[in-house]
Amino acid sequence: MKSHRKELWFHLPARRAFVNISSQVEEALRESGIREGLVLVNAMHITASVFINDDESGLHADYESWLERLAPHEPVGQYRHNRTGEDNADAHMKRQVMGREVVVAVTQGKLDFGPWEQIFYGEFDGGRRKRVLVKIIGE
Amino acid sequence: MKSHRKELWFHLPARRAFVNISSQVEEALRESGIREGLVLVNAMHITASVFINDDESGLHADYESWLERLAPHEPVGQYRHNRTGEDNADAHMKRQVMGREVVVAVTQGKLDFGPWEQIFYGEFDGGRRKRVLVKIIGE
Amino acid sequence: MKSHRKELWFHLPARRAFVNISSQVEEALRESGIREGLVLVNAMHITASVFINDDESGLHADYESWLERLAPHEPVGQYRHNRTGEDNADAHMKRQVMGREVVVAVTQGKLDFGPWEQIFYGEFDGGRRKRVLVKIIGE
Repeated sequence: MKSHRKELWFHLPARRAFVNISSQVEEALRESGIREGLVLVNAMHITASVFINDDESGLHADYESWLERLAPHEPVGQYRHNRTGEDNADAHMKRQVMGREVVVAVTQGKLDFGPWEQIFYGEFDGGRRKRVLVKIIGE
Repeated sequence: MKSHRKELWFHLPARRAFVNISSQVEEALRESGIREGLVLVNAMHITASVFINDDESGLHADYESWLERLAPHEPVGQYRHNRTGEDNADAHMKRQVMGREVVVAVTQGKLDFGPWEQIFYGEFDGGRRKRVLVKIIGE
Repeated sequence: MKSHRKELWFHLPARRAFVNISSQVEEALRESGIREGLVLVNAMHITASVFINDDESGLHADYESWLERLAPHEPVGQYRHNRTGEDNADAHMKRQVMGREVVVAVTQGKLDFGPWEQIFYGEFDGGRRKRVLVKIIGE
């Protein structure tokens, strides 16, 4: 069994943003030389997500409004977590809805995807450096 | 390390439905001959889910109402994604709540499940052919 | 490829609670002797979650209120599942928001975590014995 590890770094100025990282994950897969196995891609920070969906800007705007409706940022005083001096409690909720990680099959050296699947980094508390971990195991 | 890949196909007439796919995943596991490892089961489409919960029709009716409350289908004009000509933006949200994939342990050649765990395909935008990927790795 | 399996048992008196299980998962990893691979940690029951987030009591109180807002326990008669004699339909919804499982990379014999990542068992229908499965594969 072979394994390969890579970190992707982000520093997004906006509080919230979605970044397509599919080509970076594919690059890590090529570097690994692994042909059959599994790729884990996870946010290493707890106010961010990695998820798979469509690369369509209208949909991303819809996600932004919908998540803000499910777990509003304001008023920040509504969350006990924010009494610690943070203002990012909502980001910890949004990340649970969108998920921490994805696991993707590797088949014949490629990400084994359906026609519209793309991998995104979801930032819900930007303005600081954060990481995504790519871990590939297989043969 | 061995690996095995299988696609399950669905064409559900209703917009939304839940289908128990546990026996199909077990069949793929038997075909693989793998005794110890991991199974990944994921929707290959971005308006569908694979999730694990109870096979109880009342619960599935509750999921249907609850997801419709969290991300209503109507009015379709409330979502920017639907300006592309689609009417399925709500399905992209429902799928995030229910999840894209499950990873299940394989132990002694069986899905290593608790007493009530069953695997479901969740369709949120039916009426077209869609696939689920089963990828098994191990020995 | 090596594999290791361990069950963690819980019997929480409260209906809802969060328990940090990071050190128990690390212990299972040490027992396995695996240096590079993946760990799957999943609830074996369908009214419980395993998730990764911050070990901060204010945040956990926020999760409790937020999940209760998204899927209220009362009135129990609002859910068809509860006509079976159960009163835990809300727990099946809360568990979908927080997730069934996490997959964590193993690198150099350690859980490959960002600075704040901690693994939690989330109980949404306590008062009975329940299990979490830890399955580790790698070399």
